[in-house]
Amino acid sequence: PPKLRKYLVSPYDPRYKVWETFLIILVVYSAWICPLEFAFLRYLPSAPFVVDDVVNGFFAVDIMLTFFVPFVDKKSYLLVNDPKKIAVRYLSSWFVFDVCSTVPFHSISLLFNEHGHDLGFKFLNVLRLWRLRRVSSMFARLEKDIRFNYAVIRCTKLISVTLFAIHCAGCINYLIADRYPDPRRTWIGAVMPNFREDGLWIRYVTAMYWSITTLTTTGYGDLHAENAREMLFGICYMLFNLWLTAYLIGNMTNLVVHSTSRTRDFRDVVQAASEFAARNQLPQQIEEQMLNHICLRYKTDGLKQQETLDVLPKAMRFSISHYLFFRVVQGAYLFKGVSSRFIQQLVTEMQAEYFAPKEDIILQNDSPSDLYFLVSGAVVYGRAAEGELLGEIGVLCNKPQSFTFRTTKLSQILRISRSKLLGIIQENREDGDIIRSNLQQVNV
Amino acid sequence: PPKLRKYLVSPYDPRYKVWETFLIILVVYSAWICPLEFAFLRYLPSAPFVVDDVVNGFFAVDIMLTFFVPFVDKKSYLLVNDPKKIAVRYLSSWFVFDVCSTVPFHSISLLFNEHGHDLGFKFLNVLRLWRLRRVSSMFARLEKDIRFNYAVIRCTKLISVTLFAIHCAGCINYLIADRYPDPRRTWIGAVMPNFREDGLWIRYVTAMYWSITTLTTTGYGDLHAENAREMLFGICYMLFNLWLTAYLIGNMTNLVVHSTSRTRDFRDVVQAASEFAARNQLPQQIEEQMLNHICLRYKTDGLKQQETLDVLPKAMRFSISHYLFFRVVQGAYLFKGVSSRFIQQLVTEMQAEYFAPKEDIILQNDSPSDLYFLVSGAVVYGRAAEGELLGEIGVLCNKPQSFTFRTTKLSQILRISRSKLLGIIQENREDGDIIRSNLQQVNV
Amino acid sequence: PPKLRKYLVSPYDPRYKVWETFLIILVVYSAWICPLEFAFLRYLPSAPFVVDDVVNGFFAVDIMLTFFVPFVDKKSYLLVNDPKKIAVRYLSSWFVFDVCSTVPFHSISLLFNEHGHDLGFKFLNVLRLWRLRRVSSMFARLEKDIRFNYAVIRCTKLISVTLFAIHCAGCINYLIADRYPDPRRTWIGAVMPNFREDGLWIRYVTAMYWSITTLTTTGYGDLHAENAREMLFGICYMLFNLWLTAYLIGNMTNLVVHSTSRTRDFRDVVQAASEFAARNQLPQQIEEQMLNHICLRYKTDGLKQQETLDVLPKAMRFSISHYLFFRVVQGAYLFKGVSSRFIQQLVTEMQAEYFAPKEDIILQNDSPSDLYFLVSGAVVYGRAAEGELLGEIGVLCNKPQSFTFRTTKLSQILRISRSKLLGIIQENREDGDIIRSNLQQVNV
Amino acid sequence: PPKLRKYLVSPYDPRYKVWETFLIILVVYSAWICPLEFAFLRYLPSAPFVVDDVVNGFFAVDIMLTFFVPFVDKKSYLLVNDPKKIAVRYLSSWFVFDVCSTVPFHSISLLFNEHGHDLGFKFLNVLRLWRLRRVSSMFARLEKDIRFNYAVIRCTKLISVTLFAIHCAGCINYLIADRYPDPRRTWIGAVMPNFREDGLWIRYVTAMYWSITTLTTTGYGDLHAENAREMLFGICYMLFNLWLTAYLIGNMTNLVVHSTSRTRDFRDVVQAASEFAARNQLPQQIEEQMLNHICLRYKTDGLKQQETLDVLPKAMRFSISHYLFFRVVQGAYLFKGVSSRFIQQLVTEMQAEYFAPKEDIILQNDSPSDLYFLVSGAVVYGRAAEGELLGEIGVLCNKPQSFTFRTTKLSQILRISRSKLLGIIQENREDGDIIRSNLQQVNV
Repeated sequence: PPKLRKYLVSPYDPRYKVWETFLIILVVYSAWICPLEFAFLRYLPSAPFVVDDVVNGFFAVDIMLTFFVPFVDKKSYLLVNDPKKIAVRYLSSWFVFDVCSTVPFHSISLLFNEHGHDLGFKFLNVLRLWRLRRVSSMFARLEKDIRFNYAVIRCTKLISVTLFAIHCAGCINYLIADRYPDPRRTWIGAVMPNFREDGLWIRYVTAMYWSITTLTTTGYGDLHAENAREMLFGICYMLFNLWLTAYLIGNMTNLVVHSTSRTRDFRDVVQAASEFAARNQLPQQIEEQMLNHICLRYKTDGLKQQETLDVLPKAMRFSISHYLFFRVVQGAYLFKGVSSRFIQQLVTEMQAEYFAPKEDIILQNDSPSDLYFLVSGAVVYGRAAEGELLGEIGVLCNKPQSFTFRTTKLSQILRISRSKLLGIIQENREDGDIIRSNLQQVNV
Repeated sequence: PPKLRKYLVSPYDPRYKVWETFLIILVVYSAWICPLEFAFLRYLPSAPFVVDDVVNGFFAVDIMLTFFVPFVDKKSYLLVNDPKKIAVRYLSSWFVFDVCSTVPFHSISLLFNEHGHDLGFKFLNVLRLWRLRRVSSMFARLEKDIRFNYAVIRCTKLISVTLFAIHCAGCINYLIADRYPDPRRTWIGAVMPNFREDGLWIRYVTAMYWSITTLTTTGYGDLHAENAREMLFGICYMLFNLWLTAYLIGNMTNLVVHSTSRTRDFRDVVQAASEFAARNQLPQQIEEQMLNHICLRYKTDGLKQQETLDVLPKAMRFSISHYLFFRVVQGAYLFKGVSSRFIQQLVTEMQAEYFAPKEDIILQNDSPSDLYFLVSGAVVYGRAAEGELLGEIGVLCNKPQSFTFRTTKLSQILRISRSKLLGIIQENREDGDIIRSNLQQVNV
Repeated sequence: PPKLRKYLVSPYDPRYKVWETFLIILVVYSAWICPLEFAFLRYLPSAPFVVDDVVNGFFAVDIMLTFFVPFVDKKSYLLVNDPKKIAVRYLSSWFVFDVCSTVPFHSISLLFNEHGHDLGFKFLNVLRLWRLRRVSSMFARLEKDIRFNYAVIRCTKLISVTLFAIHCAGCINYLIADRYPDPRRTWIGAVMPNFREDGLWIRYVTAMYWSITTLTTTGYGDLHAENAREMLFGICYMLFNLWLTAYLIGNMTNLVVHSTSRTRDFRDVVQAASEFAARNQLPQQIEEQMLNHICLRYKTDGLKQQETLDVLPKAMRFSISHYLFFRVVQGAYLFKGVSSRFIQQLVTEMQAEYFAPKEDIILQNDSPSDLYFLVSGAVVYGRAAEGELLGEIGVLCNKPQSFTFRTTKLSQILRISRSKLLGIIQENREDGDIIRSNLQQVNV
Repeated sequence: PPKLRKYLVSPYDPRYKVWETFLIILVVYSAWICPLEFAFLRYLPSAPFVVDDVVNGFFAVDIMLTFFVPFVDKKSYLLVNDPKKIAVRYLSSWFVFDVCSTVPFHSISLLFNEHGHDLGFKFLNVLRLWRLRRVSSMFARLEKDIRFNYAVIRCTKLISVTLFAIHCAGCINYLIADRYPDPRRTWIGAVMPNFREDGLWIRYVTAMYWSITTLTTTGYGDLHAENAREMLFGICYMLFNLWLTAYLIGNMTNLVVHSTSRTRDFRDVVQAASEFAARNQLPQQIEEQMLNHICLRYKTDGLKQQETLDVLPKAMRFSISHYLFFRVVQGAYLFKGVSSRFIQQLVTEMQAEYFAPKEDIILQNDSPSDLYFLVSGAVVYGRAAEGELLGEIGVLCNKPQSFTFRTTKLSQILRISRSKLLGIIQENREDGDIIRSNLQQVNV
């Protein structure tokens, strides 16, 4: 990480992360209290307003702080340290909104109006909901972070949105009833005639109950719109619900499809294999080996791994195979004394495979087309132990295999095709001679 | 299967499978009776409590038994026989939960309290729902088992979850009404004023009816929340329903998409083929052959089969093609007397194809690029019967085909390309000579 | 088509198709009248029972007829003509069910009971719903028939199932109310106290209204269960609805995803192309050519066409390209007088491509790697007309192109790579000489 | 663009586009006013009918205009200029419908009937909804236009359909109540006994409220069908809603799946890479390089770009790579003085890759298989600046690399494989000699 200028705060500093998380909690509090104050204000105690001013203070501090936090440039992917550039970027983007959402309008309104129940100032207070963009960008960040489960993040986001929608709709609907001239002709007044005298808790729960009953389209009908204003709000809310419900279902479908795709792919492959075996009446033993191999491949996720490697540039693939296989290959008796460059070329061309227990690697009388290295596991009939070679005589002398090699444990094996091996030997004559003498010494 | 130590019970023993299935039935009973006792206990007869103690006894036996059942290690895929390891694994995982869910709290509560209606002890009884993890893991296992239909398992799981949710919600909602001070201000009391005197059956059905009416969001409104407690529970239940409904729909969509994908793929291919034929005004006969071939390919699932084979390691593919084709190839007149190694090499390179009736295999004057073996079915014009070769003169003497070969029945055919065949002949000179003399003897 | 034995009726006979379609209409009538009779029987006029007997008569005729209709064997895909085999197959499959669903139970019941209102006999009448399997198998057949739109067939099927479910549920719910001892404590009696005296029409509409209100989960609550029996039926129906709604949504999602996939793929490709152009600041002209080409490819569905051809066996691909291109190639001046075998080899290796107007085919100074034939359309700069060759001098004499060739209209072009062309010329020396002399004669 | 005949209006003329957009606005107005007039006509003021006649006038003008607008032929993709062909095409397609939907039936009805409240004429007025096909075709066009966001267009379309359905259903339902003999036995009369005296606004809002309550299946039950006519309409509307809701959810799922697919693919690849690193215990440094490279690839959308290029014909790919790379390659010291044809061949074979900062391009001792050009960015250890070559000595003299090359910034690099480079050099002997002398001059 490049050195920061004095007074600047790294965005990767753990203390800054804690500060951001703390602000998120304050945002959640704001999102809850803000519609509540807006709708139930007339009867609310003054305590929340004091808390509000404290919360506003924290956000004011954050506005200051933002001028001292470098940002990552979108083109060069580098951290910009220059305080001027930081200030210009902030001032030209969210600064005005952030300030507007931090001004304590309620306290200001008290200067003009004794009770502060002015609807205009209340609307200004709603500007605090602008802070929700922090939550939104937090979720966007978490979704791309593989340390967190995608389904969990996505569900949390959807639940948050749903709860916020329910909360807001309940509060607005109460506000409409509260301001209506004839309290008995409102959705709540029709059931609780003196609702304005009831406690905050029972009114809040009733509003939430109406809200969720409508959102889930349960619609018992015990609470329903009584006048045109409420009908209009109901129309808007139900249209929004239609959209929200469809969005929830779409997301859930997406998660279900994604989460079950692996199991279904596995089933499809196993099904195809066993149908193939049944149609051609393959012997029991071959069918079992096939199914075992497919299960293992599914467990070790072999296919995806290969795709991942194919995407990487050559130098990276080279350093990975060097790291993984160089020692194993160097330790084989056949390659004692050969140049390390030869082994490097060999290693680049090798492919790793896993074999389940009791699977055949080489069959007797098979034509010799590949050379195998046993990295881990065990193989019988040819009695190979870890680090040994399989099929080297066949490949180098072009003879059919004289043994069948079969695994006894889960084994990892490196494979190189005969043509590639001979190609590399031809390019490096001296190493070829060493290999030939190694082969003769051992197999005489 | 490796030999088990004395006193140990194999997890693959059919009797153990029966025992496990029996326990699953007991779990289902527990899941049903447990919320029922919790909510309707005051009026329940004592019979279920006796049954409960018996059920608890069976689960206690299973806890003992678990110490004698080997488990499969997750890394080596081998069965662990050592009783110490089995005990350590169980004690450090589910043991405590299993014991807690088996203690007969109701019977214990009778020692302290004459009627056993204490809410605290009732909550402890709910711990028995921990046993549901057995059902959950059973479904996870069945989903990966291709002997069972995936859609059926998945639907059964979803229906079970839905029924359990309905049952629990109905019971809890009744419990809230039952404990409410003013029975007429409850959801059930508003409709049935003396509901506490009504029979268990009518109260249970009413609770279930409310529960399902709310879950499906039908919400007739004949039964609805009357006080804040019920509203709160309703809010929670409806939020859960939103999630559950979305999950059900997501799963159903997943199953529908998967189950129709084959038909849609088939339609897409046939559509593309017939559009191609229409755009280029191909003759009727060629179009019919194309569509027939595609239908056949769809029925025999040809594409998937090839993908399955490609995934397998070389030795396995070798033994499969050896098993399937060796005899057919050996029986052909052209390969009488050649070494079995030669035939093995040939067999490895061969590909199987199916042809619908009345499809052309080789056209007259076509350049000879492949050699075909008729495995089953029949071919006219060249009058080939099962086990015969097609196109051998063209391939070996490089002459254009003098006949068109056309199938009369559904036929399976092996194909080897000319270049591969000549490559193998060049590697095995002696076998090449035998083939040439075979060819001359027959075609003179 | 093979010759049928005397007295047998071909399943492909248009008259048999008409008969089958006629039976489907009768099945639809049965499916509608059967639950109606079951529920509203007490007040139904006797007219439908006469119609019923006539319908039963038609189905009895069809049972007879089935013994004379050959079937397609599932293994050999051939028509089985042998009357014995036809009879054995039918008797061992649906025969018993078909007979049971055809017996006129209502008429029989009149022999024992004057009014025929016995519930037992009514249940037997419900067996007629077995006929619905004909509708089910008809939909399965239509889904695979590309002459019909998949979405339309699928939607029709779903709507039929929904309507049938609504109809059945309404009838059963009415039956429950009708049989309940206290008519005022039923869902319909609570609203229409003397409902048994009301007309059939108003009772039927009310039952359907309740049924659809519940199925769509609208649940106004004006009609709702009043007793335990109705609650129980409501619970079952709502559980079924949950499943049915999820199934409908799943199917609709499937259709929407499939129907929009082409547009979305097109958008993705165009987006990727224009982003590529923007990022690399390609000149306007090249970008336009790219977008034109992609649009054309999307319209002519070029990608799918290639996939379709790849699936076909070699002989079929050969006859297609022979049909499409042989004449065009034979007509080119360069190939005057060469053997038809040479042209056939050439044709097999050719690939067809479409070019949008104002697209470059060959650029000046491009290295000559392909030879092009203009099948249709027009090309300027090199002034080529239909049936002409492009780039032949470059390819044969290995010189860089001296002109840029650009299309003026939508053009279809055949392409063969230089290496393949030279390979074929080498194999056919004499034809090569003719080509060379053709080239010299024209280009001197 | 080809020249138009006199008096013809180009369909691409911006003024014509404005005219079309203006008509769309009129269509939206028609779609709203038409059902409203139909249902609430008896109490409507006469103002809308004057507006109607003006709107009809505009559409009459458009019918005239259509005879002067050329169209694009579907086969040749060319603009048809011939006025006769334009007229024939229009007269044989939509002309009759367009005229019918433009006749001012209301004004005509006033000639026959003083009040114009005749239901027959009202139905004729509904013909104006035919104009909606303009909106439908506008959406079809916008969906394929990548300048607009697909999700936004699709959502707008769905919202429009939903709003129109709600509006129509509300109006029809009101019409049924309005025409019913007994006003107190209607859905609206049961709640508002003298509804015919109420204001238009309150009646319209109530109708919309009922409509949306039913569409979203909320179904409070405060407004519900009271007679058979309303029940019948309710049944039809609810069946339609079932279909519409499923369609909305299907579309939303489609959009969600598509919009999240990129993030999910990214997560899958990163997950696979980090699991691979964890399983093989790769060193921290290699893992970081892998993840960085994958992130970069995701950001620059590397995979899609390659797919886009592969689809294009050869000449187009050639001109793109010429435009992008010719100058860079020509500027390299190694290719000073070589023929431009040589560079063109080189450029065709090159592939562009992006490297994240601190990524290795060539490792020390790696076998030399590729030659790299640094287009932009910077590389250390071998101290390469923009426009320089990497690995040229290794490739040309076949020596292992003596340096590791590592990027310091985001870098774009061109790669050509050694075998292709040597192949091109062999084909162009003279250029090969120049390169060799260039190499010696610099590296001595």
